[in-house]
Parts: sequence; C-alpha cells; structure tokens
Amino acid sequence: MRLAARAEGAARTAALALLASASLLLGGPRGAAAQNQNGADPLPSWNDGAAKRAIIDFVGRVTRSQSADFVPVAERIATFANDGTLWQEKPVAEGVFALGRLRELASRDPSLRQRQPFKAALEGDVAYLRDAGVAAVLELLKVAYAGVTQERFTGEARAFLDTARHPTLARRYTELAYPPMLELLAYLRAYGFRTWLCSGGTTDFMRIFSQDVYGIPAEQVIGSELKRETRFEGPRMVIWRLPEIETLDDEHMKPVNIDRHIGVRPLLAAGNVRSGGDVAQLQYSRGRAGPSLQLLINHDDATREFAYMERDSASLKAARTYGFVVVSMRRDWKTVFAPPGTVARQRRVP
Amino acid sequence: MRLAARAEGAARTAALALLASASLLLGGPRGAAAQNQNGADPLPSWNDGAAKRAIIDFVGRVTRSQSADFVPVAERIATFANDGTLWQEKPVAEGVFALGRLRELASRDPSLRQRQPFKAALEGDVAYLRDAGVAAVLELLKVAYAGVTQERFTGEARAFLDTARHPTLARRYTELAYPPMLELLAYLRAYGFRTWLCSGGTTDFMRIFSQDVYGIPAEQVIGSELKRETRFEGPRMVIWRLPEIETLDDEHMKPVNIDRHIGVRPLLAAGNVRSGGDVAQLQYSRGRAGPSLQLLINHDDATREFAYMERDSASLKAARTYGFVVVSMRRDWKTVFAPPGTVARQRRVP
Repeated sequence: MRLAARAEGAARTAALALLASASLLLGGPRGAAAQNQNGADPLPSWNDGAAKRAIIDFVGRVTRSQSADFVPVAERIATFANDGTLWQEKPVAEGVFALGRLRELASRDPSLRQRQPFKAALEGDVAYLRDAGVAAVLELLKVAYAGVTQERFTGEARAFLDTARHPTLARRYTELAYPPMLELLAYLRAYGFRTWLCSGGTTDFMRIFSQDVYGIPAEQVIGSELKRETRFEGPRMVIWRLPEIETLDDEHMKPVNIDRHIGVRPLLAAGNVRSGGDVAQLQYSRGRAGPSLQLLINHDDATREFAYMERDSASLKAARTYGFVVVSMRRDWKTVFAPPGTVARQRRVP
Repeated sequence: MRLAARAEGAARTAALALLASASLLLGGPRGAAAQNQNGADPLPSWNDGAAKRAIIDFVGRVTRSQSADFVPVAERIATFANDGTLWQEKPVAEGVFALGRLRELASRDPSLRQRQPFKAALEGDVAYLRDAGVAAVLELLKVAYAGVTQERFTGEARAFLDTARHPTLARRYTELAYPPMLELLAYLRAYGFRTWLCSGGTTDFMRIFSQDVYGIPAEQVIGSELKRETRFEGPRMVIWRLPEIETLDDEHMKPVNIDRHIGVRPLLAAGNVRSGGDVAQLQYSRGRAGPSLQLLINHDDATREFAYMERDSASLKAARTYGFVVVSMRRDWKTVFAPPGTVARQRRVP
C-alpha cells in the first residue's frame, strides 16, 4: 500500500510534468514569452542578481523558436550534482548511512574493528581516512554495500532515509534540499528540459528519493555503482550486489558516464565547490557545440548553512577560465532551507 | 541545418508523445476504455490471435485505474531487443558497418589481413569466427571501433546508415523495421510506458537511428559499449573511445544493465529467437512483483522474411517454462515490412 501510494504520487507528478511540457511545447515561443510578460517569477527563492539573470536569460534564449540560440527539445539535457548542489553535504547523508551499515557488520564480525580502513571509519578517525584517500573509501563501500539483493539494499536505505535526522539541523535529510534548486529543476522541466542527477553518491541510494524530493525518476540518476550479477532465488531472478566497484562517478568519470547514460552533452550542468569533482562535468557541458550554461554553487553562507572552500580553489579557478556562473548561496539565494513544517507540503518525502 | 531539421523532427515527435501521454493520463481509465469502445485498433498490422489479444488485454489491465493489476506510470517500463526484434537481423546492420570499418583499417595497415581474427572477418570465413566465438568478435570490435572521438564515430555510422542497403531486400536498413513492432512501441507510449532498447548492438550505433525509426531517444538506449575517457582537443573536452570492452549487453548482462540504466524491472520485455541472448532479459521482467508480459519473436516466416531457429531451442523452451508469449511472424503479423516507398512517410529515417 505504502509503495502504491508513493508510486501514485510519482504518477501524478509525472502527469503534471507532462502537461506542463506539452502546453509549453504547443505554446512554443508564446508560452515562454507569456511567463515573462505576466511578470510571474519562476525562481522566487533567488535574489535578483547576475546568477538569476543568467539563468532566465539562458532558458529564454535556448527555448524561443525564433532565437538564434534555439535548442530543440531533444537536446535540452540538464545534469546536476547532488551532495552540495541540490541538498546539504555536511555530513553527506549517504556517508552516514554507509557508516551505519559498517557498524552493523562489525557487530556481527568484530574482527572488522581491528582492520583498516574499517577501524578508522568505525572510530571516526578522519585524519586516517583523509590520508588513505579514495582507495580507503572504496574499500569501505565494497564491504558496506555488497552481498545483498538490490531489493534488500533499497529497503534498508529507504528505512534510513525515513528515520535518520541531520545531527545539527535536526531534520530528515530529505527535508534539506535547497528550495532555489528545486525551483530551478521545475523551471527547466517546464521548458522541456530533462533533468538528471550526476553525482558521486551511489545510484541506488539516490534513486530512493530522487523522484519524491527532486522530481527526477530513477532512470535519470547517474552515480557511483557496485558491480552486480544475476542470481536465482528459486525460480525468480534477482540482481545481486558484488564487492567490486563498477564506476566511481566523480571528476573525469562524470562526462564519461553522462555519455553512457544520455549520449547528449548537457545544455546546462550544475555542480558545487568542495573537491573539484564537478569541474570535468561542467567542462564537458561547456564543450557543447552551441549555447550552454554551467552553474557552480559556492558554499559561502556560514550563517544559514556552512561556509567551506577547496584547499586549491580548483573549481573557482575553472569557473573563471571557462566562464561558469558562480552561484553565491549567501548573495544569490533568498532561502537556503525551507521553513520547518513546510517541506512536507511542498513535496512528498520518502 | 540537417542536424537541426532532424532534431526539430525529434522535438515534434516528443511533443506529440507528451500530448498523447498527457491526455491519456488525464483521461485515465476513460481514455483507455474509449480506445477499445471506439473500436479503434491500436495494432492494425497484427492478425487477431493469442499474441495480439495478450498484448491488448495486458495493457488494459495494467493501465485501468480500477483494475486489480493497475501499475502506476512510474513503473511502466518496456524494454526491447533490437536486431531480430524491432528490425531484421540477416545480416545484422551493425556487423556490416563494423566490417566496413575493418576493411578501411586494413587498407591502411595491410598486416591486419594476416592476423586472426581479422583475416577471417575480412575473408568472410564464417566457420572460423563461429568456432572462435564471442572473444573473436570482441577483438574485432575493439579494433574497428576505438581510437576516435564519439563525435567522429557517430558521423561515420550515420553516413553508413544514410547510404548502405540490405544485400537482398535492397532497401536501407532503417527502412526494414517491423511495422507491427513500431505500432506496439507507439501503443505502449500512448499508455504512459517509457520504451527502451536493450540490445547486444552498441549503444552508440543504435542511438543514431533510435529516435527517428523507433521514437526512442538516445537516453533510452542500452547496448554494448567500449570504454571511454575524456581528452582535450585544445580547450574543448571530448570523449575518446578506447580499445577495451566496457560491457557486452547480452544474456545475463541485460538484466544488470537494465538495473543500471533504469532501476525498475520491465513491465513488458520483448526479445527474439536466435541465440538465447534475450532469455535472461525476459526472465528478469518475469520476476517483477505483480503483473508483467514477455514477448518472444519467432522468426518462422521464410516467405516474407527469413526462417531460423536456435540449435538448442533454448528461447522457446524458456518461453514454455516461464510463460513468455511467443509471437509467430508468420501467423501473428499481417505485414513484416512496410511497402517500399511508404516508410519515409510513416516515419523520418536518418
């Protein structure tokens, strides 16, 4: 019943999205112009400024059929990083979930507590993990995530998202998406864009909430992945998760995975400052023949969220070199999080 | 200009599909019932028989909201094999293309003619290739397909599809899609299904014609793939094709790749008799919790197409065991190919 209700909600969302797209496609330039002439603001949570103007100008230019920069619907692809771009990443929700799974495994197999990198992860030894780098994280992931069917994994991740709360913001992680970005997603879809996730988080974790929180269906989620194989449980085929990394969707694998899943360069790509992991995704979009727009979210709002930078500022430097639009959370966003209690009414949460 | 025209065609197709879906979603059960009550036949190229009745009954059951078997739009996923399911496969068009690329390479590097498996491929030594098996085919593919950017590869494959003709049927390969299956694709989409390709052919080859011939966008194509990496040509990032196989989308990799790309078990899956390569895809669909339908196309029409079977009849045996619906081309289809000259009017060809 619960699943059916969830899916019906998704169907309603899909139906509304289809209607919005269809009416705009029919209306074509008039549909687009009307929205501006009516003075309706598609991005009310954005302050008036260079970033907001760049977005609205861009969407107008590529969707008005008489525009020199007109882009047909088939090529209106927008890709978004997740952690730090669409919702907060201090801490990364999936990291908390993975750690919970490791703790559970360690309670059944205490020898894990003596072995690195598990020891460091279980003891919160951040310095060790930082020095050990990506290899250690992958080692943790392989152990924490493998050895179950997709269906069982999905159920456990859903249970986590249904109950876990952010340690300081005291709300469920799914309630901590950024309203300005939710508006941007809906705005783009209303103009015929297909919106995709392309993130370092794992595909299977993001798929659980992508439809309900972002309006992005499971089939438009690109992330990191474990290898899998088919097995049989009785006569029924299942997908079994193997302790091997299939793809780590970060840095230069993001363009490769976008090519694999979409096959069209993003017309718009959005990432964020933290590790430099989104630079390649934005460069790939920038290399599109014809117009394109790249957004880089800068976490510079210590009051309403968190302020953090990269050690080498690689993302901000790339923004200057390639012409990415830097979005300042402090200056460009009216709100960073929806007021408590309003989120559930704005969108379904898992 | 040519690309723009092609893309605009795709946009129109998309707009029509959206409208069709939206009106049916709105109309819900009434929309679905009307089509039957009006007596309009959604599958005019199908003879009345068990297969056609099974399809229409199934689509009705899963899309009428008062039905016990109702399936929400989010889960209406249909996957189709390509060669032998949606268009003819004697010969496989992509095989002809790949051989052409090998010949071109051999004209520049004659030493290829002395090395197996290239020698066998260039001399048409089918017996050698059959004995050498999949490994030999992969070796050929790696050499024939790598060492270029995605954009250059796509251009060459498009040029092939624009000009090459079937050796005996004397029409372009893209004109040899099966009208009964094109009707089925459109019928499913009108009822809110997303239609996907899941085929042993390579993703990048199928993407060139999937929208124009099948109405399936590039982002809904799952196939075999080469590994890729990002490179820079001046300041511009490109995707470079490497001489390594990333995935061979056949047999038990089909369910795995469906899970990777879609994340939802197919509500309907269609494959064909030849190698047994579609059995796993159909089994995976069959394992869905709730209703599902699997179609297995049987090439039993020596008059209008070609009659061929598997040596071990694995697909037909699986159909009996699992309850897949066998579609006889001879008995179930009124037409196998559209009359010459009508194809271009029915759908855009590349």
